[in-house]
Amino acid sequence: INLALPYQDLPIMDACLATGTDYLDTANYEPKDEAKFEYSWQWAYQDKFKDAGIMALLGSGFDPGVTNVYTAYAAKHYFDEVHYLDIVDCNGGDHGQAFATNFNPEINIREITQRGRFWENGEWKETDPLSVREDLDYQNIGVRASYLMFHEELESLVKHFPTLKRARFWMTFGDAYLTHLRVLEGVGMTSIEPVEFQGQKIVPLEFLKAVLPNPGSLAEGYTGMTCIGTYITGIKDGKEKTIFIYNNCDHAKCNDEVGAQAVSYTTGVPAMIGAALMLDGTWKQPGVWNMEQFDPDPFMEMLNEHGLPWHVIECEESPFKK
Amino acid sequence: INLALPYQDLPIMDACLATGTDYLDTANYEPKDEAKFEYSWQWAYQDKFKDAGIMALLGSGFDPGVTNVYTAYAAKHYFDEVHYLDIVDCNGGDHGQAFATNFNPEINIREITQRGRFWENGEWKETDPLSVREDLDYQNIGVRASYLMFHEELESLVKHFPTLKRARFWMTFGDAYLTHLRVLEGVGMTSIEPVEFQGQKIVPLEFLKAVLPNPGSLAEGYTGMTCIGTYITGIKDGKEKTIFIYNNCDHAKCNDEVGAQAVSYTTGVPAMIGAALMLDGTWKQPGVWNMEQFDPDPFMEMLNEHGLPWHVIECEESPFKK
Repeated sequence: INLALPYQDLPIMDACLATGTDYLDTANYEPKDEAKFEYSWQWAYQDKFKDAGIMALLGSGFDPGVTNVYTAYAAKHYFDEVHYLDIVDCNGGDHGQAFATNFNPEINIREITQRGRFWENGEWKETDPLSVREDLDYQNIGVRASYLMFHEELESLVKHFPTLKRARFWMTFGDAYLTHLRVLEGVGMTSIEPVEFQGQKIVPLEFLKAVLPNPGSLAEGYTGMTCIGTYITGIKDGKEKTIFIYNNCDHAKCNDEVGAQAVSYTTGVPAMIGAALMLDGTWKQPGVWNMEQFDPDPFMEMLNEHGLPWHVIECEESPFKK
Repeated sequence: INLALPYQDLPIMDACLATGTDYLDTANYEPKDEAKFEYSWQWAYQDKFKDAGIMALLGSGFDPGVTNVYTAYAAKHYFDEVHYLDIVDCNGGDHGQAFATNFNPEINIREITQRGRFWENGEWKETDPLSVREDLDYQNIGVRASYLMFHEELESLVKHFPTLKRARFWMTFGDAYLTHLRVLEGVGMTSIEPVEFQGQKIVPLEFLKAVLPNPGSLAEGYTGMTCIGTYITGIKDGKEKTIFIYNNCDHAKCNDEVGAQAVSYTTGVPAMIGAALMLDGTWKQPGVWNMEQFDPDPFMEMLNEHGLPWHVIECEESPFKK
């Protein structure tokens, strides 16, 4: 189970090849000097892993991870053909800090300051960072401003579900969070270009990470919950319909159970499930795989057993315009 | 002429003592590890400078500096007794940057994130940082939100004009500037406490300085002007009155003349005038002195000759409540 930084995925995959060890991660590779994460580098290991008789399971966290499995589950049980995919990620929690990221600040800020990207009619379309907004109603949380951004599972899902006409990812951010982000970006503190400081080169974003709260420290006193899920619109028996599969995860309950907040919990439990399915042979095949390439049913069953129960809502209509 | 950092005042005064050199600065001493500037440390050199037959002129910039001279000039020519002093500092300019300080960011941010302080009825009173606001109308600029803060000339002026019942200092800040400041403070980037970073101790505020624009680089394209002045209310011939003495300084004209913006210009010219008066013997006396302890007239005359003309307005009423 590789829970190191995305920059380290390839060296760890090399180490797995050298030692004949199966591999699982929760975030795809991204070069250190460019904020550009994509699967190409890891997919290129397909033949090497197959030849070595070992497997790599890519992105076995919540998103990517559970969201891929939700999509595969919907495609298997609810649709003949899936057409529209909108993955939504809402953290409705309150950690009481002026500004903090819920996982590694360096990785988080690299991700959300990137240009937005989504799949439509067979091609990727770009947007300015956090420039497209929808106000969405989240189960047990309420309406939250949600911003279109690129997220890595989109890349594998449009490949493995070629009937998708559109695939997008949305994340909620509060105004205070965005103000902080804009200010920090405006003054250059989120830059990954090194600056000269007292005779050495320092990357501003890495220094910013050093002053921000450690995400692990947020768990104590963190209230509220997350709601992460997948809206899928498609055709079943000739009729169009939309379903929403989601999980609510409560920060305080996670802290009581394992001493961690919900963003850690929702990433850690799926990593455990992915590894368990590899170990017992249920998900086992030499090569490099994304989550949606395996049968979703055993994974969905274990989510219910291990603290991340999910729900399916058949929507009267999609909250998204076509 | 000492234009180094405030931390360096005392070593430079020691060097002057060791070499028998007259001394002039534009900002008073402040220990590096505590954002607390006050005159006590430099005033303690009084006897040493007197005994050595050399002089120190403290705070010969605009504020402190010209504002002290304005006060002395008002006391000499317009009042029998001065009672209320409000120094106002407005930068109505636009440098086009998301966030930049007009002089050394480290010193500027240390100053404005301090608690506010003013003199009233014989004692210092404190306020939360930037918590007291007045909307003041500045000549040739307009109404600007102005915030009460401590500024070093207050300390010497209440000492040398003991009839003052109240002495305050106000500076204008725009909402965007304050938002930036609040965010940077909230995340810890303005702290002077070192943090651990890659095995070394780094002061966040010093690193922030490295990413912010160099104030000198703002001059090109800087438009608008400053308005810095002194409201004085007092008694003349048994009647109360208020005057305002001020200067407007235009960023673009300064840049045309000397390749610097107005905040640099308004500090540099008074330093030159102070030094010139010391050199020609007009302001010359062994010991350590603040600006208001000398005859203001020759200084005021040179301000008019050297690019910082001033104006006196007799106000119908003070813009400040008593």
